[in-house]
Amino acid sequence: MGRLQKKIMIELLLVGIGSGNPDHLTGEAVAALHSADVVLIPRKGTDKRALADLRRRLCAGILSNRQTKVVEFDLPRRDIDNPAYLDGVAHWHSAITDAWARLIGQHAPQGGRVALMVWGDPALYDSSLRIADRLRAHGIPLTCRVVPGISSLQMLAAAFAIPLNTVGAPFLVTTGRRLRTDGWPAGVDTVIVMLDGTCAFQSLDPEGITIYWAAYLGMPCEIRRSGLLAEVGVEIVAERETARRTHGWIMDTYLLRRATPAR
Amino acid sequence: MGRLQKKIMIELLLVGIGSGNPDHLTGEAVAALHSADVVLIPRKGTDKRALADLRRRLCAGILSNRQTKVVEFDLPRRDIDNPAYLDGVAHWHSAITDAWARLIGQHAPQGGRVALMVWGDPALYDSSLRIADRLRAHGIPLTCRVVPGISSLQMLAAAFAIPLNTVGAPFLVTTGRRLRTDGWPAGVDTVIVMLDGTCAFQSLDPEGITIYWAAYLGMPCEIRRSGLLAEVGVEIVAERETARRTHGWIMDTYLLRRATPAR
Repeated sequence: MGRLQKKIMIELLLVGIGSGNPDHLTGEAVAALHSADVVLIPRKGTDKRALADLRRRLCAGILSNRQTKVVEFDLPRRDIDNPAYLDGVAHWHSAITDAWARLIGQHAPQGGRVALMVWGDPALYDSSLRIADRLRAHGIPLTCRVVPGISSLQMLAAAFAIPLNTVGAPFLVTTGRRLRTDGWPAGVDTVIVMLDGTCAFQSLDPEGITIYWAAYLGMPCEIRRSGLLAEVGVEIVAERETARRTHGWIMDTYLLRRATPAR
Repeated sequence: MGRLQKKIMIELLLVGIGSGNPDHLTGEAVAALHSADVVLIPRKGTDKRALADLRRRLCAGILSNRQTKVVEFDLPRRDIDNPAYLDGVAHWHSAITDAWARLIGQHAPQGGRVALMVWGDPALYDSSLRIADRLRAHGIPLTCRVVPGISSLQMLAAAFAIPLNTVGAPFLVTTGRRLRTDGWPAGVDTVIVMLDGTCAFQSLDPEGITIYWAAYLGMPCEIRRSGLLAEVGVEIVAERETARRTHGWIMDTYLLRRATPAR
């Protein structure tokens, strides 16, 4: 970090790219990537190589100007065996911050615009904004611009042509971890679950719950399944495992709706 | 509706257009509008004329092909004085269904692709998907394709460069009406409020709550304000009222975050 002087200014562009399908990019996202001096592409290990490939292809398709430098780097991995979830995340964020700081010092030593392509939307269950805060806390002079992208929960709703909310009613967006520990949340008839590696819906009493589940949204290999949780839940668990083995990775999300209004 | 025969097929395209800023459209949204035979543009009365104007300009900018017919129509208005909210909504949806059916019969009598431009995302607090269900129930042979758009809650998060969720935590999306009647929801530290005509945050004990508020997101007249609710709440109420009078209409949304974790 020593190479960055106080006068040097970095504009960090966090660009939401939706599913990785180029059609899901907004005009603003394309323009933001075009305007960048450097685009950083994280590699997340061999099993997720397909994801880095996708970003690389997106970049190649978009960046008709050849001034923008595209830099790949190995993203530190989170220790998923750390039993203290928040500690594990904090440690991981710290490692990513060091990696970004190194890359910025190396590829934008005079300052400039550094872009990161973020799956879905940078505001939704993504760590980039928190890493940006840490960089600032480290004394790196940084402004941050966020370009929203189509998130997986929107793609999910579009794929099934369903609204996220029932009329005038709230909905909760949560994680698999929290659904498993907290059960069905109070006061809502709709729950959308992200970051679920273990089909946490299995921990619920399925009575009266409909599930809309999809994986690889927006990609050619997209799969989806919906129905009464009591009827399709087991099939989804099996289908998810088969798909994960076939592709080496999986990104899925689902919406649960309870027939009985929450009030 | 008699003019539509069983063999005639309508493909309804519900196209999310984000804020109305052309840069917020995805490539998929532009292509969908291009592919339409007819684009229906609702007029919502003189005070919201600016919104119809925006859609008209978007259409004019996008539709380089001149085959697509652009049709404006007067949207039936909801009786906001109906004390039974859900009844009022149902009655209003029924009136819109009749209007759409008439327009489809008139402008796509042989079937075809009919597009509607939806503010934000068609899955979020929008009635179009419910109207489509009603058309189907009326016997109009209809398939429905949803194109997601950047929603106001994403634009809000991007405007402030904040994440919607805290690390690994859930968040609730709700309406002003429900926030006022239910109070701060159980189990969450983040609440996003849509469709709030009366600054329902005033009904909360502001202690420990930070608000991120914005109106006219993505438009040149965008305004935003954030801070401790106890300090900026009153100013937001005043600023909102001034802006509403100046423009004749207002669309705003806000995120509330409670410092104390919900667990």
